[in-house]
Amino acid sequence: MQEPVKIALLGLGTVGRGVYRILTGNAENIAHKVGAPVEISRILVRDLTRDRGIPLDPALLTDNYQDILDDPEIAIVVEVMGGIHPALDYVMAALKRGKSVVTANKDMIALHGKELFATAAASGAGLLFEGSVAGGIPIIRPLKQCLAANRIQEIMGIINGTTNYMLSKMTREGVDFDRALREAQAKGYAEADPTADVEGLDAARKLAILASIAFNSRITLNDVYVEGISKITARDIAYARELNYVIKLLAIAKETPEGIEVRVHPTMIPQNHPLASVNDVFNAIFVRGDAVGDTMFYGRGAGELPTGSAVAADIMDAARHILYKVPGFIGCTCYDEKPIKPMAMTESKFYIRLMVADRPGVLASIAYAFGDKEVSLASVIQKHTDGDRAEIVMVTHRVREQNLQDALRLVGCLSSVDRIASCIRVEGE
Amino acid sequence: MQEPVKIALLGLGTVGRGVYRILTGNAENIAHKVGAPVEISRILVRDLTRDRGIPLDPALLTDNYQDILDDPEIAIVVEVMGGIHPALDYVMAALKRGKSVVTANKDMIALHGKELFATAAASGAGLLFEGSVAGGIPIIRPLKQCLAANRIQEIMGIINGTTNYMLSKMTREGVDFDRALREAQAKGYAEADPTADVEGLDAARKLAILASIAFNSRITLNDVYVEGISKITARDIAYARELNYVIKLLAIAKETPEGIEVRVHPTMIPQNHPLASVNDVFNAIFVRGDAVGDTMFYGRGAGELPTGSAVAADIMDAARHILYKVPGFIGCTCYDEKPIKPMAMTESKFYIRLMVADRPGVLASIAYAFGDKEVSLASVIQKHTDGDRAEIVMVTHRVREQNLQDALRLVGCLSSVDRIASCIRVEGE
Repeated sequence: MQEPVKIALLGLGTVGRGVYRILTGNAENIAHKVGAPVEISRILVRDLTRDRGIPLDPALLTDNYQDILDDPEIAIVVEVMGGIHPALDYVMAALKRGKSVVTANKDMIALHGKELFATAAASGAGLLFEGSVAGGIPIIRPLKQCLAANRIQEIMGIINGTTNYMLSKMTREGVDFDRALREAQAKGYAEADPTADVEGLDAARKLAILASIAFNSRITLNDVYVEGISKITARDIAYARELNYVIKLLAIAKETPEGIEVRVHPTMIPQNHPLASVNDVFNAIFVRGDAVGDTMFYGRGAGELPTGSAVAADIMDAARHILYKVPGFIGCTCYDEKPIKPMAMTESKFYIRLMVADRPGVLASIAYAFGDKEVSLASVIQKHTDGDRAEIVMVTHRVREQNLQDALRLVGCLSSVDRIASCIRVEGE
Repeated sequence: MQEPVKIALLGLGTVGRGVYRILTGNAENIAHKVGAPVEISRILVRDLTRDRGIPLDPALLTDNYQDILDDPEIAIVVEVMGGIHPALDYVMAALKRGKSVVTANKDMIALHGKELFATAAASGAGLLFEGSVAGGIPIIRPLKQCLAANRIQEIMGIINGTTNYMLSKMTREGVDFDRALREAQAKGYAEADPTADVEGLDAARKLAILASIAFNSRITLNDVYVEGISKITARDIAYARELNYVIKLLAIAKETPEGIEVRVHPTMIPQNHPLASVNDVFNAIFVRGDAVGDTMFYGRGAGELPTGSAVAADIMDAARHILYKVPGFIGCTCYDEKPIKPMAMTESKFYIRLMVADRPGVLASIAYAFGDKEVSLASVIQKHTDGDRAEIVMVTHRVREQNLQDALRLVGCLSSVDRIASCIRVEGE
């Protein structure tokens, strides 16, 4: 057994506490597997006096990052504070000094991955970030190593627990969006300001990270088309069931001859698709490779111990790399530069729900408008509603996004059409 | 880019061809990721003249292993011939010379893992075997690295594609075992002699490997309790549906205070369990860790390209380790010696189907026998069948295997009981 590998935690919030609990609780096994004990020698916190709810030697705490940076014995800095500032400065400073960094910070990796990896490569330090996507589910290392011999063709993931909880609840209980959101907030699954989760931004950041690794080309948040779930109604969920679909907020990335598609939006998938039965706060990432075929990785996408599990595994790998004197063992894998396919050029099937006047010829005029833009319809359901109104639900065949949007613009102008109530992409068939 | 890493394939059957196709087809990406090209410089075959169905430089082929062993430029030996002899001798010889070995040979690893890892450790060579369990699904590396900070509590896997195909077919179409087996054979999913698959031996070998890694203690094939699917009837499958269960051949390993449980047997699991919707030849491994909670890994458990994907990923890792001069990067992780819990001491719920005389007092005498052995019943269904016979289906509460077997012995002696038609463990609730 070698000398302990000393690490510092930056932050002692939810994930930090999880990491602390795991490293201290499973210390003996971790030492066996690494070949040396892993010792938390410093913890950076803002408030030295606050009760952390865990048994902790107060001498470990510091509110001065310089104490950590200047300590030559600290080989690994574990950033679990979140946010961009000051996390980014701290991490950059550590990497410049050759300290390896483990982080669970999706925002920082998604927005500043390029400079972070360049800095790590320059100093030879390691930079690991398994905890930044899908909590405890192993997905970064599987993509970087286990599936490395594949050309990844497609990723489809449920990578936001808040929205998956809400959609599961809406599907199971028929409640509407507002009610589902309130319950998610009451359970602590959604924040007071739920925008980042509900509008798909959280998923988009994670997708940018996953797609960059899968396709070996840097994809940034701006490249990702994003649409949230706030317009999903109980009615659409009921129709989805009728059509044998389930609605999920999916993060989708595909490599095509015209470039890489990256998009986050509510999606109908067949009820027998492996992702369809991923419910509540669980996450899952479906990966299709040219050799391996279809695979899926499932588990808890957030939480103190699940995310702590991913961070602790990275710490163990980083420690092993340091012991073997190969700290920057697997660096950035974005060795390629591939174009992004514009959203207008992507192809999907679409579910469309229209509120229309219930009179002869309406369906014909709608069908004509779709046909004019080369949108062909796979199925149509028409239901009478109140008074002289009707509801038409259509599912298209595969069509280019641009054509579909053009057709919807035409349909929206028809005097017999009150409104386009919903338009949801259909995938996974 | 560094000089090529040279490798030799032992065998050019299904998996060997897959590895060849992947390494040549994705050569450029693989070189980028490894940091050097991976070059197949020799292939050992029995018959030099046979057509292999792939474009191949005949100069690569040899029927003399000594050519490979004596070539100092060959750094990695990839054993994809299968079986114990001569694979074991070849692999041992390579490891002794310090060549790293990648293998997909579950039999060899399950039966000779200990000596193989000791030999690799002595010479500092790498020994990787991701392809030996569950084909293309990443599971060895996730257990060894991604979930390394966890105490693994339980593994439940569908790790035999043949039996999963058969049970899926029996469940979906109501056909009986013989018909399902014939169709599996016609599709090439089952061998002419299907014993190893159908009787659970194939799954048991894989489970021995998985459990050894999960619990850091060597588990051999002899430790595994094995029961196959040949006694499963269409009738049991129909009852399973009525009770909201699905029947799967599960490989189960649990760590308990009394030791490690390792068993392969047909199992009823709730229809909403993540493993319940894993159908046809797909495999999946459900892993529960103390930190990460429930996770699952899903994909194709066999086949040229899926298994080739796992072997090629190991080759890439082994090559990277060699370039970094750390060939034996992650060695054997069986640093502990834990006792095996005798099957009689394990606990499950049980589904039991009895054929009995349809007359008053029969159920009472059966219930009395169960109660006498402290087996408590959760539900009972009694159905009249032909003539004066009836069928009783019971599900017990959790009970010790020993008590259940004792109770069944008593019940079997009752004059009103024709036979104990089925006894299937229930898990995952």
